[in-house]
Amino acid sequence: MVKKTKVCELLGIEYPIIQGGMGLIANAELAAAVSNAGGLGIISPNAGEPDWGKVADNLRNQIRKARSLTDKPFGVNFPIHQIGEDRSLIDIAIVEGVRVVTTGAGSPALHTHYLKEHGVKVLHVVASVRHATGAEKSGVDAVIAEGYESGGINSPDELTTFVLITQVVDAVRIPVIAAGGICDARGFAAALALGAEGVQMGTRFIATHECIAHQNYKKAIVAASDTATVITGRRLMPIRGLKNELTKEVQEKEGAGTPPQELLAILSPGLTEAAMLRGDIVHGQAMCGAGAGMIDKIVSAGDVVRSIIKGYDRIVAGL
Amino acid sequence: MVKKTKVCELLGIEYPIIQGGMGLIANAELAAAVSNAGGLGIISPNAGEPDWGKVADNLRNQIRKARSLTDKPFGVNFPIHQIGEDRSLIDIAIVEGVRVVTTGAGSPALHTHYLKEHGVKVLHVVASVRHATGAEKSGVDAVIAEGYESGGINSPDELTTFVLITQVVDAVRIPVIAAGGICDARGFAAALALGAEGVQMGTRFIATHECIAHQNYKKAIVAASDTATVITGRRLMPIRGLKNELTKEVQEKEGAGTPPQELLAILSPGLTEAAMLRGDIVHGQAMCGAGAGMIDKIVSAGDVVRSIIKGYDRIVAGL
Repeated sequence: MVKKTKVCELLGIEYPIIQGGMGLIANAELAAAVSNAGGLGIISPNAGEPDWGKVADNLRNQIRKARSLTDKPFGVNFPIHQIGEDRSLIDIAIVEGVRVVTTGAGSPALHTHYLKEHGVKVLHVVASVRHATGAEKSGVDAVIAEGYESGGINSPDELTTFVLITQVVDAVRIPVIAAGGICDARGFAAALALGAEGVQMGTRFIATHECIAHQNYKKAIVAASDTATVITGRRLMPIRGLKNELTKEVQEKEGAGTPPQELLAILSPGLTEAAMLRGDIVHGQAMCGAGAGMIDKIVSAGDVVRSIIKGYDRIVAGL
Repeated sequence: MVKKTKVCELLGIEYPIIQGGMGLIANAELAAAVSNAGGLGIISPNAGEPDWGKVADNLRNQIRKARSLTDKPFGVNFPIHQIGEDRSLIDIAIVEGVRVVTTGAGSPALHTHYLKEHGVKVLHVVASVRHATGAEKSGVDAVIAEGYESGGINSPDELTTFVLITQVVDAVRIPVIAAGGICDARGFAAALALGAEGVQMGTRFIATHECIAHQNYKKAIVAASDTATVITGRRLMPIRGLKNELTKEVQEKEGAGTPPQELLAILSPGLTEAAMLRGDIVHGQAMCGAGAGMIDKIVSAGDVVRSIIKGYDRIVAGL
C-alpha cells in the first residue's frame, strides 16, 4: 500500500501524485478528476484559452469549474516567465481560495513570500541542485525536481530524473517531488526509491479523456515509440516535443549553426497552440515527455492514478 | 535482502551488480575485486595499454591476473567498433576460460553465435527498444540497457535510464540490466523497480582504489557536481565526459555549425588516454557518467558492492 508521504500531509491529499499544470491544456475537468482520485490536479491559467489577454477570466472560470467538480484540493500553475512581476493572476487564485500553487521557469524569490503570506503552499520546479537549494532558501514548501525526460520547457543542464532526484534529495530538507519520464507504477516506485516523496506527471495525463488537448495530439502520444521525442532549441530555450516537420527543420538549422535569433522566428508561440489545441501535430510544437512510448491508451485521469496505486504493491513485493 | 534475479542465475553471481568494462581502465584488479564482493567484474582488453597493437598480450595478462585474484566468475568487454570482424581477441578470452562477455557499439549479429557456441554468455549493450529486440534476435543472453546518463560513448537517441528500462523490459523476454546514472543503493533499487534484473555501473567503479585510472581523473569524479558532465559530438558520435577545456572547444565549434569531419580532427583517440591514464583532465577526454555528482569518495570496489547491498533493505523498507 502506498504510504502517506510528507507531500500528502503538506497538500492534504491521499496519494502523492500530482498532475502537471501544462500550459494551454491543464483544464479544470482534468484537474478535478485527478484530485477526485486522490492525487492533486493542477490548472493552467490559459487552459483552452490561447489569448493571454483573456487569461484572467479564464483562470477564474477554470478554478470555479474545478471547485464545482471536486471538494478535494487542487492547485494552479504559474510559469514565472509568463506572468513576470504581475500578481493579478496570483490574486485571482488567492481570492478564489486556491491553496496550492506550482511555479517554474523563473525565480522563486519573486512570488513565494507573497503566496505564503496568503496561506498558499508553493511547489517550485527545479532542474539542478543549485536551483533546488535556491528555491528552498526562497521559502518554497517543496521542490518538483524535473528531469531531462520532461516534455515542454527543459533545462540546458540536462540532468535526468535518475541522477537529479537523488542529488536534490541530498541537498535540501524540504520534500522533493520527482518529474520527468514517470508514466506508470514502475516509475512511481522508482522515484520513491530514489528518495522522492511524490511524483508529478504531465504527458501521461494528456492522453486522458478529461484533458482538453486535441484528439490528434493525444493519439500521437499513444502512437509514440521510445524514440519519438526530441529536444530542440538547445542554445535558446530547450523544449522537448514530438518529432515532426517542425523539429526536423529546427534541428537542421541548429546543425548548420543558425543563430538562436533566427530560430526564434520559426518558433512562434502560436505553434504550441496549433499542435496542442488545434491538432496540427505535423507542423506545430507538440510538447511531449520522453516517456510517451510507455503510454498506449487514452484512459480516464482517475484510472491513471488508480492503476499506479494498484500496481505499486506488486512492484514493491518483487523487490 | 537483495533477491537472486535471473541475472544472478545466468552469470553464477551472488548480487546482480556488474562493473562496466570501461576501455583503458577496467583492469584485472578492479574486476577481481568486484567479483570477490559478489558482483561481476569485467576486464577491458586495453586496460592500462593504450597501444592497440599490444592488446592481445594485454588481454591475456589481464585475464590471468584476474584469475589469480579471484575464483569467482568475471567477464571481458568487446567494443565491436574496435574489434570489428577479427576474432583473435575473442579467441583469447575463450581459450583463457572466460565465460561472460559484454559487447556493444556495433552489431550483436557479428559474434554472438560464435561466442555462444563456445559456451560464453553474451550481454549486449543497447540504447533503444529497436536495439534491444535486435539483440534478442541475435541470441544474446541479456541486454544491458544503457541510458543517456552513461559516461563515454552514448546514443543519439538520448533515451534516459528512467524511460529506457521499462520500455526495453516490456519489449524483450531476456533479462534486462540497467546502466546509466546508477551510483548507489537508491539507484539500484530504482532500477529494479523499473523492471531491471540487475545493474551495470561504470563511473562509480572508476573512483575506487583498485581501478587503474589516473588519480587526477578519480579526484575529478569525486569533486564533480551535478552539472559536471556534458555530451559532445552529438552529430558525430556522442560522448559524455567531464566538462573541461576540450569539451568547451568542441561545444563552441558545434554551436557554430562546424562540420563533423573538422571536429574529428580535434578529438584524437589519444585524448582519452591523456585524461584517463595520464591525468590531463583539463585538455583530455575524461569520459564520465552524469551520476558523478553522487560520488564523493574514492573507496574500494568491494565496498561499492557492499554499500549497495547494505543500503538496499532500508530503501525497500521505506517503500
